Amino acid sequence: MYELTMLQASLRDGTADRPCSFEVFTRRLPNERRYGVVAGTARVLEAVRDFRFTEAQLAGLDFLDETTREYLRSYRFTGHVDGYREGELYFPNSPILTVRGTFAETVILETVILSILNHDSAVASAAARMVTAAEGRPIIEMGSRRTHEQSAVSAARAAYLAGFHSTSNLEAAHRYGLPAGGTSAHAWTLLHVDDDGRPDEKAAFRSQIAAQGPGTTLLVDTYDITQGVRNAVEVAGTALGAVRIDSGDLGVLARQVRDQLDSLGAYDTRIVVSSDLNEFAIAALRSEPVDIYGAGTSVVTGSGAPTAGLVYKLTSVDGHPVAKRSSHKASHGGAKRALRACRDTGTAVEEVVYPFDAAMPELGILHPVELTVPLMRDGAVVDGLPTLDESRDHLARQLVTLPWEGLALSRDEPALSVRFAGL
Amino acid sequence: MYELTMLQASLRDGTADRPCSFEVFTRRLPNERRYGVVAGTARVLEAVRDFRFTEAQLAGLDFLDETTREYLRSYRFTGHVDGYREGELYFPNSPILTVRGTFAETVILETVILSILNHDSAVASAAARMVTAAEGRPIIEMGSRRTHEQSAVSAARAAYLAGFHSTSNLEAAHRYGLPAGGTSAHAWTLLHVDDDGRPDEKAAFRSQIAAQGPGTTLLVDTYDITQGVRNAVEVAGTALGAVRIDSGDLGVLARQVRDQLDSLGAYDTRIVVSSDLNEFAIAALRSEPVDIYGAGTSVVTGSGAPTAGLVYKLTSVDGHPVAKRSSHKASHGGAKRALRACRDTGTAVEEVVYPFDAAMPELGILHPVELTVPLMRDGAVVDGLPTLDESRDHLARQLVTLPWEGLALSRDEPALSVRFAGL
Repeated sequence: MYELTMLQASLRDGTADRPCSFEVFTRRLPNERRYGVVAGTARVLEAVRDFRFTEAQLAGLDFLDETTREYLRSYRFTGHVDGYREGELYFPNSPILTVRGTFAETVILETVILSILNHDSAVASAAARMVTAAEGRPIIEMGSRRTHEQSAVSAARAAYLAGFHSTSNLEAAHRYGLPAGGTSAHAWTLLHVDDDGRPDEKAAFRSQIAAQGPGTTLLVDTYDITQGVRNAVEVAGTALGAVRIDSGDLGVLARQVRDQLDSLGAYDTRIVVSSDLNEFAIAALRSEPVDIYGAGTSVVTGSGAPTAGLVYKLTSVDGHPVAKRSSHKASHGGAKRALRACRDTGTAVEEVVYPFDAAMPELGILHPVELTVPLMRDGAVVDGLPTLDESRDHLARQLVTLPWEGLALSRDEPALSVRFAGL
Repeated sequence: MYELTMLQASLRDGTADRPCSFEVFTRRLPNERRYGVVAGTARVLEAVRDFRFTEAQLAGLDFLDETTREYLRSYRFTGHVDGYREGELYFPNSPILTVRGTFAETVILETVILSILNHDSAVASAAARMVTAAEGRPIIEMGSRRTHEQSAVSAARAAYLAGFHSTSNLEAAHRYGLPAGGTSAHAWTLLHVDDDGRPDEKAAFRSQIAAQGPGTTLLVDTYDITQGVRNAVEVAGTALGAVRIDSGDLGVLARQVRDQLDSLGAYDTRIVVSSDLNEFAIAALRSEPVDIYGAGTSVVTGSGAPTAGLVYKLTSVDGHPVAKRSSHKASHGGAKRALRACRDTGTAVEEVVYPFDAAMPELGILHPVELTVPLMRDGAVVDGLPTLDESRDHLARQLVTLPWEGLALSRDEPALSVRFAGL
């Protein structure tokens, strides 16, 4: 609402056309994490490009005058957006996105830009830690049911960006071309009762194998897990793809089940574990015979940090830097760009933020990696932006540039500090 | 994905048509809270009623056989849904929703039902604690930018259900008829610089008053807050509606600003505070001269519990109760309904859960309040379900039936225990 009341006031007092720049950044990383992951950029650019007001929406905006409604009716963003690539790492004060245009056309984009970036970056930042913790073992995203029905689709995308293997969300698979994966629920086993209502786990397994083939994953912990594994191999044979354990002490059970599978000759049958896994639980299972992780609640809710805490702040007006001076919320004015200063080995040393139109600062023996790239020009998305898979690869490459302690899961300072130069 | 692979397997092995019941419940309340608030029911019923697969979606489901695709093509839910009213309180093991129908038609609703209820109930449960903490002072929901762009709309609805006064989200106001509210951003003040780029706070205030009238809320903490209040009253006069403080020690500042406003004769100008307010911060400000709270991040992310942790479990097949027996996840089989046993004074003593088709258990001197009501019959939403405002009133009435310690913000046991009778 306040975007539109500010728009109206600016159209009346003549400030609507002032050239402005807004910046997206965060003041801190949540839970003393070491880094954040920029996610949602492609969704933001699409949303900004297509930002429109329908007649039905305009009719509801009866607190606005006709001039303002007319402005909204013909609204098209015609400005410029620059910023970090999707899949880039960020730290406190990294200028993730810079939006330039008139006050009127930029002020009304605050909510849509922040909603997308805050959600997607929160999920990707948590997911990247899980991927690191999994040390190369695949993780399936299966958290749709624990988050809003539309967020679920975006969360699956963000988790994939961060390196997850696949998603159980078919809408996300459909919309973004992600690999889909799924197993079966306890309901499937429970459904198979005989005429007297007695459990018949083998009937459930037999039927799943008949429909999906022996490469499927059987859920073995509905009743007794040892009997469940025995039933699974009896029905499917040693070519069974995988078994899933979804409760109990996963480490202990994984070892028991591995031993049992091996003793039954099912050496290649893999073990999938799930049950409220977060990055810490995943790391704790590293030494266990777990082949695949299923992560749900924790990844879609950002594992303790459900929003990235990004803000959208006015940084310049008519070329003059502006910044608020409230206590605890001091900001550097002026539009900015950033680079990462790296050693010859590729290891990043620090991030340097400098005026948007200034020359690159001197770095001595370090070499610069430019972080700020053009994303929109005159309201059009620039050509050649990375695909989701390219962004996924980009992130994987960036993570290995952090100093080694930067990938630790423990709480500490950000892995890189951000220095302002010439501001 | 697994909903559809289970569907396919059930169509092949003949179990698809077995009459089943599924139940939505939670095993525990997050963060040792005392109660949860059921929210999203009306959205669930609409989603179930309208659950369809488009040809474009079906074309993407190439892992399914033609029989299964044909089933989905003509899918209409034809079963029954019973459950707690929207705005009802719930506790661990409360049978919030019971869905009855064939296995095929009920199993594929898991994700849509849980996503909606888990999200909306998480927000409403947090929001209700904030409303209690505010002791009658209005709270404006202003968290859209900190959550997914679509969740934001549902979050505004859930917060209103829980007793919030209004929302800054215009789409939510439009879609659900909520009161809309908003103030202005620091960007508005920062926009107003003179030709040399020097701040001109008074120009910003003057312009906002001209556009919105003196009843508006001026944001006074962009530069110096004391000067900001002085400028605000100078420009608007003593009829100024409100000032907003968005940073610093809100309690100290509220007292200073109140004194200053009174000394300037602006006795009726109200004080709005915002800045990462959660239920604890709201409670801490109870003794301060705060008139209106603005809550954002915390309410839309469930204040530390971004999902309600509700699950959807098969409870009966062909009339036989079923339940999994994995360690730590034991459940009671069979479809259920519930009542709350209350004293004559209206105070609730416990919740009693009993078989869906059984007679109501004896309660001695306590009287029963039925919690389980019909919501859908033969795939149609029943007539006469409460409006959002009626659900909001219902919740407000229910909260006062809790034992007095049930409204405490501190961690403890659930306010009511849930007893199984005849199961």
